[in-house]
Amino acid sequence: MNGLIIRYILGYVLKIEGFLLLLPSLVAAIYNETTGFYYIAVGIFCMIIGMVISGKKPENSVFYLKEGCVATALSWICLSIFGAFPMFLSGEIPSYVDSLFETVSGFTTTGASILSDVEALSKCSLFWRSFTNWIGGMGVLVFLLAIVPLTGGSHMNLMKAESPGPSVGKLVPKVKHTARLLYFIYIGLTLTEFIILIFSEMNWFEAINTSLATAGTGGFGFRNDSYASFSPYVKWTVTIFMILFGVNFNAYYLIIFRQFKKAFSMEEVRVYFGIIAVSIGIIFLQLIKTSVGTFDAITDAAFQVASVISSTGFSTVDFNEWPQTSKTILVFLMFIGACAGSTGGGIKVSRIIILFKSLGKELKSYIHPKIVNKIRFDGKAVEHDIVRATNVYLVTFFIIFVISILLISIEGKDLVTNFTAIATTLNNIGPGLEAVGPSQNFSCFNNFSKFVLIFDMLAGRLELFPLLILFHPRIWKDMAIQRKRRITH
Amino acid sequence: MNGLIIRYILGYVLKIEGFLLLLPSLVAAIYNETTGFYYIAVGIFCMIIGMVISGKKPENSVFYLKEGCVATALSWICLSIFGAFPMFLSGEIPSYVDSLFETVSGFTTTGASILSDVEALSKCSLFWRSFTNWIGGMGVLVFLLAIVPLTGGSHMNLMKAESPGPSVGKLVPKVKHTARLLYFIYIGLTLTEFIILIFSEMNWFEAINTSLATAGTGGFGFRNDSYASFSPYVKWTVTIFMILFGVNFNAYYLIIFRQFKKAFSMEEVRVYFGIIAVSIGIIFLQLIKTSVGTFDAITDAAFQVASVISSTGFSTVDFNEWPQTSKTILVFLMFIGACAGSTGGGIKVSRIIILFKSLGKELKSYIHPKIVNKIRFDGKAVEHDIVRATNVYLVTFFIIFVISILLISIEGKDLVTNFTAIATTLNNIGPGLEAVGPSQNFSCFNNFSKFVLIFDMLAGRLELFPLLILFHPRIWKDMAIQRKRRITH
Repeated sequence: MNGLIIRYILGYVLKIEGFLLLLPSLVAAIYNETTGFYYIAVGIFCMIIGMVISGKKPENSVFYLKEGCVATALSWICLSIFGAFPMFLSGEIPSYVDSLFETVSGFTTTGASILSDVEALSKCSLFWRSFTNWIGGMGVLVFLLAIVPLTGGSHMNLMKAESPGPSVGKLVPKVKHTARLLYFIYIGLTLTEFIILIFSEMNWFEAINTSLATAGTGGFGFRNDSYASFSPYVKWTVTIFMILFGVNFNAYYLIIFRQFKKAFSMEEVRVYFGIIAVSIGIIFLQLIKTSVGTFDAITDAAFQVASVISSTGFSTVDFNEWPQTSKTILVFLMFIGACAGSTGGGIKVSRIIILFKSLGKELKSYIHPKIVNKIRFDGKAVEHDIVRATNVYLVTFFIIFVISILLISIEGKDLVTNFTAIATTLNNIGPGLEAVGPSQNFSCFNNFSKFVLIFDMLAGRLELFPLLILFHPRIWKDMAIQRKRRITH
Repeated sequence: MNGLIIRYILGYVLKIEGFLLLLPSLVAAIYNETTGFYYIAVGIFCMIIGMVISGKKPENSVFYLKEGCVATALSWICLSIFGAFPMFLSGEIPSYVDSLFETVSGFTTTGASILSDVEALSKCSLFWRSFTNWIGGMGVLVFLLAIVPLTGGSHMNLMKAESPGPSVGKLVPKVKHTARLLYFIYIGLTLTEFIILIFSEMNWFEAINTSLATAGTGGFGFRNDSYASFSPYVKWTVTIFMILFGVNFNAYYLIIFRQFKKAFSMEEVRVYFGIIAVSIGIIFLQLIKTSVGTFDAITDAAFQVASVISSTGFSTVDFNEWPQTSKTILVFLMFIGACAGSTGGGIKVSRIIILFKSLGKELKSYIHPKIVNKIRFDGKAVEHDIVRATNVYLVTFFIIFVISILLISIEGKDLVTNFTAIATTLNNIGPGLEAVGPSQNFSCFNNFSKFVLIFDMLAGRLELFPLLILFHPRIWKDMAIQRKRRITH
């Protein structure tokens, strides 16, 4: 266990966060808000701590998957702990646990809020919330990889631990270049959305916040009714970009390098669009039966489906009031989630495809027990290890799911609230149903339940194992042994 | 595809059913009920059809896993279709679909009912319901294997397709003897329960019915309040036997052959008892906080936990009114289910253990990627194929689960009703929550939903694949080709 390199990375992450915290204070300067000072103060504090911790680069910079996982998990926890301070210190969120919940919800791109009145927040805090969505979407370690010269080690392990999906491929041979390319695509798409939105009724501030929160598939809004009161132009723009940010970024890479045919034949992307189309269709048919007009029905159906499958969590309507089948579809979309290698959450479409294919394989093996079947994905045989990892992922997902529901059920809320609260946090969506529906918020939970939900948001964003590994006694034993060795030397 | 042998087995199954249908008419004779005639008529009809179909034994009696699956699935469907007639023809259940639902619920040991007033049924129909629980518990094909001289074929495949659990072992070298041994244990335990119950306030009829329905972990009762109005003596007897029938029958085999140490060290059985103890403890602590007395609290908690984990489905109390954590625990127990190789349903404890162990293995592989870990169960390394099959089982389970919920959600019932209705049928329990809670019944669903639930009950009892395989076009193509070949010869 290379504890020194983990410390070094943590220090770097804090330095980056310190810098990022200065941006909201710029917003505060424009709008003449005093809350900006808290962002500056916490920002400087982070930078100092970061510099102290990452003072000297460790000689041995090699790190394996476990170091990658531990570094990632601890980075996200540190980011959240420090990022929660400005809103707490400024008194905008009086409880630190609430502020932590809000910040974790932001970084993990969940978008679940404990605020009943978002509009009461200062502009700079609103910006910070949307900005955490954006930072969390691509991941702060991918950012770190793009700018920090970490030599000699296997950086891939950092990226593996932070990136969503069953298998992480390097787009280009060097991890550093892959990370830069990802951020290039990410910034490009965010800017495009911003430019399109600026032609709507939105002002600059609104357009920036919307673009940031959409890009990270985060879902923090700035109005109490989320996007219900915006024009169809805004709604459709956001709908399309929510869907686009849920697409595997490999597709964009292929498009950039003009491999259009390969991009459009990506199995995961096709299935993703297929699920979206079918879901919108069914919900639309149910909605036009109610009193809503045809155009509103298709707008709401498309917006909500895009919002939930991409794990964004914006809303234009209180879907808690929708017909049962529509609600049920939304709940299942929460679990499916977006494509691997996107900024979206959930189990991921590629995993679902692999799971369905392994069912097909099993049935075939009943009929022809002696023929060896291989699961194929995008025309290539899927390695056994990936199938196994996918299965284990699903199992782990449900184990965390079940334990979480049990823990928050102690409060005595109804089953649908508990079930969807865990579904929406573990899949990084935002709103659930009933007491955590789009017109409600998460402040109704007690602190214990909030910590369970915070854990689930982090577990969901980091794809379970990097966070779970922190609870393995072996990790801490290794660290302690190493520290002792360093001291005796 | 050996279609002739399947036909032969189906014929035999019908002959057995015909014989079994005569038993309720004996009850009718004792109580002077005219409904008995319908049982005699349908019974004779079944025997005639059975004899016609299984007239001559096919020369080629070899059959593989696929034939085993198809024969099993078709046998259960036939059993249900014919078994539903007496209650329908006698007018006790006016709708055939309802009668089919009730019969499938009986054979699959689910115990979910469409009747709001059970006490209005004739004694012979009440007996038939409990008797279907008993027949379905051990399986009619295991019975067939015990008595029919099927030579030359691989009988194991029939047993594999019908027996619950990830792996079926032969207790003794010959399948026939294993089947006999299983029925010997089954009958022995049923008789023991009957003898203990006869010393309670129950009359003979009640004691027989209770023993039959407990043995099959079926759950069909004969009073409208299930077991609420019986004495603690009856409640505790039933509790203990529900738990015992959920134990892997291998344990009883070991006990019979005096290998006590081996029996008590069976991992699955220990975990099963562990889950039961913890669940009873938590629910008990929640119940004594309410107005219930200590003894009633422990009695109800134990009865309900035993009833749900063994997938029996009796009730002494309307647990829909219980505190949230207790209700949530019951819902999860529905999914866990009993031990493999028992008469209980659910995912099975051994599968849950394997799933948890594969999670542990995955975490270890993050820390020591190069060490090859093997999952161990009862001290032996688990073969890779069993782990894979377990994972695929879980995946398939959830796919059926999700699709079923979507299909019945069209009716517009609330999420908890839909969720628990599918959970309780797919796991062969009986009652769910809300509109399908212990004080309610399944008559509120329309016929379409009832067929979905019927499918789920059969899928759950046959452990998914034997039923799913019927939907594989390959199977029917093979059958058609073979028939053509026979005709041209």
